[in-house]
Amino acid sequence: MATALLHHAACTTLAASASASPSPSTSPSSSLHLRSLVLRPLSHALRCALPKRASMRSGSRVVAMAGELARAEPVSTPEVESFLDSLKWDKNGLVAAIAQNVDTGAILMQGFANRDAISATIASRRATFFSRSRSQLWTKGETSNNFIHVQDISVDCDRDSIIYLGQPDGPTCHTGAETCYYTSVPQSEPKLLASTLYALEDLIAKRKTEEIAPGAKPSWTRRLLQDPKLLCSKIREEASELCQTLEASEGRERTVSEMADVLYHSMVLLSVQDVKMEEVMATLRKRFGQSGIEEKSKRPSKPTAE
Amino acid sequence: MATALLHHAACTTLAASASASPSPSTSPSSSLHLRSLVLRPLSHALRCALPKRASMRSGSRVVAMAGELARAEPVSTPEVESFLDSLKWDKNGLVAAIAQNVDTGAILMQGFANRDAISATIASRRATFFSRSRSQLWTKGETSNNFIHVQDISVDCDRDSIIYLGQPDGPTCHTGAETCYYTSVPQSEPKLLASTLYALEDLIAKRKTEEIAPGAKPSWTRRLLQDPKLLCSKIREEASELCQTLEASEGRERTVSEMADVLYHSMVLLSVQDVKMEEVMATLRKRFGQSGIEEKSKRPSKPTAE
Repeated sequence: MATALLHHAACTTLAASASASPSPSTSPSSSLHLRSLVLRPLSHALRCALPKRASMRSGSRVVAMAGELARAEPVSTPEVESFLDSLKWDKNGLVAAIAQNVDTGAILMQGFANRDAISATIASRRATFFSRSRSQLWTKGETSNNFIHVQDISVDCDRDSIIYLGQPDGPTCHTGAETCYYTSVPQSEPKLLASTLYALEDLIAKRKTEEIAPGAKPSWTRRLLQDPKLLCSKIREEASELCQTLEASEGRERTVSEMADVLYHSMVLLSVQDVKMEEVMATLRKRFGQSGIEEKSKRPSKPTAE
Repeated sequence: MATALLHHAACTTLAASASASPSPSTSPSSSLHLRSLVLRPLSHALRCALPKRASMRSGSRVVAMAGELARAEPVSTPEVESFLDSLKWDKNGLVAAIAQNVDTGAILMQGFANRDAISATIASRRATFFSRSRSQLWTKGETSNNFIHVQDISVDCDRDSIIYLGQPDGPTCHTGAETCYYTSVPQSEPKLLASTLYALEDLIAKRKTEEIAPGAKPSWTRRLLQDPKLLCSKIREEASELCQTLEASEGRERTVSEMADVLYHSMVLLSVQDVKMEEVMATLRKRFGQSGIEEKSKRPSKPTAE
């Protein structure tokens, strides 16, 4: 069978884009309420979060939003206010706000947020900050249309720093780079800072185009990239060796090593087909954001091994 | 063959733990110099970065370091000073500093850094911040011993925010949590904010221990967790279907879906054996941080498919 049937796979974090409701068995808390607001679909979130008459705080402005929500305003409900009251604001009324890509873990940008920026983010689900230089709210994407769709918000132990975990529409940096964090080396390619999986992906991509001196032996990665038969034979072999670690109780160390092999070789195949790991992650997120029944019903029926 | 031979796999980012030297062919820049300092092994970094007589700036203090470096001091060399001069300090002489796990991409903590904090980090390779409440430098781990070993530093486009990308020795948060960012819900489990891959890992782990009501059908994940034969049959099948996407030119969409299947099923196998994806990532990082020759020479020799 081509695709896994992932039953009952509801996950509070991954369910962000689905119509997750807060569990009635958990005790209410300001952060729980925030999560439930954030996790609900926009229309539902607005219905629950927006006060009957949205209060405009001094200093706030109407945030221009393209698309599904033309005018996002900071919301003022008891739950949101209680959450905002629990944060430790600096003397300028700000906390640090970091936007992170939900699929890759990449840090997209870091700014600051005041009360209105956070409540506007809750209402619009679009990462919104307070510009210290312009003394006003700004939603990332309001000029570029590259919004960051926030799926979850988390607060640190000191309650003076938050993460907007979300999916960016496109490059976050005004320079066109995927993230604002790159080591700029003049006369060389800017290098995005990447965690291991995405640094490996970049490395494999580089191997596709590197020039090989006449007579020089190509790298193993290059050989795999150029030889589909060899690559597929390796993927099947490594997958089987991963299974053997369980079947023959070969131990944890061997399992780690074989999984690294499976990942590496599979990623070479993705590279051959110009597929990004980010797309794979987005697919996993969407699958696990649905219940197993929804998941199953959306797949073409065919004989399964179940 | 059990493990891949990854030839010529030197990667500037991944080479952090190896003895990478700056490429002589790239043009010098402040950030390049910083990278070369950071990327060298500690003894080399110190030899190059530390001035003949380490200057003690006003406000700096000797940072107590356990282990390989008892006393890390802020360094003052032309390269480091030039890099520090290029940053956009706020009126308190600070930039935001985010510590990120190199293997998982998790945001571990966020603090602030002044000139001395960054230069102490360069010298010690341990994430060092400036405490605004105590008005002094502090190295994460100086009391808990859970240091964050910094492998790369990146600056954002505004040059007022930096990332310390590194490997933590253990939990970063003083509460014992892996990161300082968790949604604290009273009388419920704190939930770490995780990007897709690690949220999926958490979900699979939950399936291992969830109670199943009498007569209820277990989830697909639970079935895989309890049936090694089924699990291994699925992994081999999905690996083969991933290969078919290339062999039969089935297209990008199919490739994304099949890779998601391979990842999910392989991660269930990891969970059965209590192996974390973070360990797999650390292994990949170490492999690609060595040249292919070093990599090969460290492996047990056996017949290969090459």
